[in-house]
Parts: sequence; C-alpha cells; structure tokens
Amino acid sequence: MSALPSFAEIRDAAARIAPHAVVTPVLRSDRIDTLVGAPIVFKCENLQRGGAFKFRGATNAVWSLTDEEAVNGVVTHSSGNHGNALAMAARTRGIPAHVVVPDGAVKAKVDAILAAGATVHRCAPTTAAREAAAAEVQAATGATLVHPYADARVMAGQGTLVPELFRQAPGLDTVLFPVGGGGLASGCSIAAHGSDPGIALFGAEPEGADDTARSLESGRRVGPFVADTICDGLRTLVGEPNFHALRDHGVTVLRVSDAEAVEAMKLLWSELRIVVEVSSATVLAAALRYPERFAGRRIGAVLTGGNVDLDALPW
Amino acid sequence: MSALPSFAEIRDAAARIAPHAVVTPVLRSDRIDTLVGAPIVFKCENLQRGGAFKFRGATNAVWSLTDEEAVNGVVTHSSGNHGNALAMAARTRGIPAHVVVPDGAVKAKVDAILAAGATVHRCAPTTAAREAAAAEVQAATGATLVHPYADARVMAGQGTLVPELFRQAPGLDTVLFPVGGGGLASGCSIAAHGSDPGIALFGAEPEGADDTARSLESGRRVGPFVADTICDGLRTLVGEPNFHALRDHGVTVLRVSDAEAVEAMKLLWSELRIVVEVSSATVLAAALRYPERFAGRRIGAVLTGGNVDLDALPW
Repeated sequence: MSALPSFAEIRDAAARIAPHAVVTPVLRSDRIDTLVGAPIVFKCENLQRGGAFKFRGATNAVWSLTDEEAVNGVVTHSSGNHGNALAMAARTRGIPAHVVVPDGAVKAKVDAILAAGATVHRCAPTTAAREAAAAEVQAATGATLVHPYADARVMAGQGTLVPELFRQAPGLDTVLFPVGGGGLASGCSIAAHGSDPGIALFGAEPEGADDTARSLESGRRVGPFVADTICDGLRTLVGEPNFHALRDHGVTVLRVSDAEAVEAMKLLWSELRIVVEVSSATVLAAALRYPERFAGRRIGAVLTGGNVDLDALPW
Repeated sequence: MSALPSFAEIRDAAARIAPHAVVTPVLRSDRIDTLVGAPIVFKCENLQRGGAFKFRGATNAVWSLTDEEAVNGVVTHSSGNHGNALAMAARTRGIPAHVVVPDGAVKAKVDAILAAGATVHRCAPTTAAREAAAAEVQAATGATLVHPYADARVMAGQGTLVPELFRQAPGLDTVLFPVGGGGLASGCSIAAHGSDPGIALFGAEPEGADDTARSLESGRRVGPFVADTICDGLRTLVGEPNFHALRDHGVTVLRVSDAEAVEAMKLLWSELRIVVEVSSATVLAAALRYPERFAGRRIGAVLTGGNVDLDALPW
C-alpha cells in the first residue's frame, strides 16, 4: 500500500469494518439550515464506537493485517481517541494492543485504554520519547505500528464515512470536516472525489492551530508549531502524506476562533441534542463565519467526536 | 375512535406520520450493558423533530383530521413540548395551530411555539383557566382540541415508536418508558402487546410524582397531587384512559429518586454522547436501581426528549 489509499481501498475498508463499526446517523435542523443559509447535514461520528471516527481507521488497520502480523499485535503512541480506538479495534480481532502514553495524560483516557484491554507503556511527554518507546515495543513484541493519521490504512478507514454519508443524504455537493493531523480530511477527500470529482471540499481549523491553512496557502507543509486552541483534537501538525492529499484534492481550509467553535458547539448540543467535542464544532463555526463560501451548496459536515468532560464545559 | 387506540390504529398512525417524523436511531453501549447487567438499547426520541416523541402524537392527530376539520386548525393548552410539537405538526399540513400558554411559562418554550407559526393565547396559570381558554378558542375558531395525552390519536402516534424499535433491534422482550400523563406509556403498551403479548412492560416514575405507581398499586387512579421532582416532563397526573391502558396491559411502574435520575442522565450523556432530559433518564435509573427486575431480559428503553437548558445543568 502506498502512502495514500485509493478509492478502491476505501471501499474495501468499508466492507472490512462493516461487522464492527456503527453506521452513524445523519442529523439536521431547520434552525441551523436557516442560520447557515444553506442545507447542512451532520454525519455523527460522535455516535461511533468509542465516541469518535477514530474507530474506523483503527479497525481497518487491525483487520488489514495478515494472520502472521496480527498475532504480534499493534502499537501506537497516541494518548487520545486513537489510542482507545486502536485498543478497541484490537479487541475485535482478539490480538494484543500496546499504547504508549506520555506522562501527564488525562487519567480518564488512560483508564478507557486499559478498560479496552490494551497494555499501556509510559514515557516522557515528548515526541522523541513517544517514538522511541513505540519503537522499543515494536522491537520487543513484533507489533505493527499504526500511526494515528499518516497511515494509508487509517486514512482509508476514516474515509469510509463519506460513501455512507452520500447514501444517507443523496445530493450533497460539498463536504466539510475538521483538520488536525489530516487522517480524516485526506481519507474523506479521496473518498468524496472517488464518488464525484465535482464535490467541493472544505476543512475547518482553529486560528490557534492553522498549520494546514498556512501550509496550503504557501504550497509547502510548515514545520512544528505550538498550538494555542481549546480544540484539543486539532492541535496536531498535519501529516506529510495528508498534506499532499489535501493539496492535490483542492481542499480549502477555513479558520475559526475558539469562541466561534464554543458557540457552535452549544448550538449543536441544543439543536441536534447530541454531545460533540469543541473540535468537531469547528465545522459549523466555519459554515456560520463564511456564508459566502456555502451559499447555494448542499453541505455534509462531519462531527468527529463526542468525548467531553461534562464537569468542565467551555461555556 | 374510542378512548384508546387499537394496534391497527397505531399501524395506521405509523404510515400517516412517516412523511414527517424522523426514524430515530437506536443507540447502546457496552459499559451501560455491564452496569445494568442486561443488554439495553435506547430509542432516541430526543433526536425526533422538536427534540421529543411528542411530534409523533401531534402529527398523527393533525393528519387524522378530515379536510373540513383541518381547515379550522387545532388547539391545545400545553405550554411544554406538546405545544411546540402541535405547532410544528400543524405546519406540516399548513393549518392554524392555537396554543394556550399559562402566564409564567418559560420564554424559550413560548418563543419556540411562536417560531413554529402557532398563535399563542395567554391565560392564568391554573388548570381551570387553561381549559376555559382552550374552550374559548375552540368556540371562536372551530379548532379541534388535541389533548397532550388523553387522546387516542395522540396515544396512537406515540405508540408508533415501538414497531420502529422492534424492527431496529430484533429480539427485545422488555420495553421500558417514563410515565407522565401516560400518552407515551399507553401507546407503547398497546403497540408492544400488539406485536407480542409476551413482552414485559415497565414504566419509570420519579418518587416525587409516583401517582401512576400508587394508582396501579391501589387499583384505582389517585386524585390530583403536588409533584416534587426535577423531572419536569413527568409531573402530570396520569390520564384516565391512560391509567386503564397501563393497568390492563400489566405495566409495572418503578420509582426512582431525582438523584438517581440525574446520575443516569450524566451517564447517558457521556456514554451515548447525546443530550437527554432528566425525565428521560428515569428509564436508565430504574434499570440500574432494580437489576433483579431486568436480569436475563433484552430491554428496549425509550429516551423521550432532549430539550435541556444548557446553562442550568443539574450537576
């Protein structure tokens, strides 16, 4: 498999994960349509297993392994939703999962990873230490590394939500997704244009982590940066293959402020009656902030996750 | 139509409301199954139009009218979800809706009723004043009264969620719903036993509004009482025909405390990633409090609504 998945590989991924993943519902609201000024439907990946789209990519990666590879398990060094998703996915195949967790990770997330049956490996909270620890686990166990986003199997899995969305809401001409590391964004871009090369693609990014917008504007991927946003799912630097996919598919990335994301989050909660993360709400924030971009369009927007600390809401 | 709908009338209602109502999703969680000690799926009427199951009954009532009746519109004297649902339902048929709203009603709810295009009639906040005002509107306009729960068309509409649930989650042997006025409870009981007379039926009621539990225990409907519960959707005295339906269908009503309901609400938000009202959460609270009632069962539980003031959460 090359650095990016093909549309055929996304369709294969859809069949591969079907026995395990939820066909998440699509929701909409008259009031949100009115506020946006265009019809917009929301693909609710917050209602996916584990509460995030991450389960799709992790499951595709796990079930893409040969039996010989699978027996040694999988390893990753994400402490967030991907770590938990990989642990859950490994469990569906009955194979070991190793998750390298940096010191200082949120206890609730570590507990969830442990509850899903994974082995947790502690390390210092630096990228170098995380990669070194994952490499050590690989060497010791033979486990396969499943990167959170710069992995074609993961991108293919994330992309499976697009054909599902198009079946559930026929006639869409625009897809809108948050951009963090770009696993979701690149998978969805390839899948959308595989179905119809005329689909318009938009990403949403917090102003305080607008590396992808800057990268696309300058034509080359910017270097590491310090994120300053409450959108914790979107602080990651866009991956190298992910950046190429977004550039080649002509994705326009729109910036939103944290305050706009929080406002949109509250609107989604009250209008759709679902719990979504502030990172997910960037898509609605973008549609509300840039109405001229969306006038006359029929939008499908991806709500990526719903793992929220109910005792620390941002309003 | 008699005081209670037949199963055939519920099936007719399902066809009648299909062009307008949402087929709401069914959600579940491994963790909740473990905590309950039995598999439990949730029918998410919080994701219904207007954020509550009320839209089903109101729509069935509106579309049951003859053209001659319809032209004069509909009237009700509920200030809560039913008023809004009736306004929305009337709009689907393009007919007038009148909602009698007692002084002191929550402004957000009145605004929603107005936004749905209904005419709001103010009255004093007493049952007598509400009924008098509704009768006056009826006399002046010829509008048809659509009672929130003691109306066979409304009960039939609410009951439509059960065949839907049984299609979505085959193999259920138990249905569990909150009990307020009893429109949902009686419609669901008739529908469930119409499908399979062996289905076990349970209601959930707050300790501070346990009129239905007391009525069923004593064999006769108790009189008016003063409710003391935060479950604002369940403060109503069970209706007369509703009580008869619940008694005849052998519904067991289980009491839960407000604290248990709030705890269950939070669990539903974090595990299912949806916004549900505290009244809805009584079903999970009941399943958690009375595990001996549910051991070995396969439960379908109804989450009735998701209209919550996000700035005043009860935890």
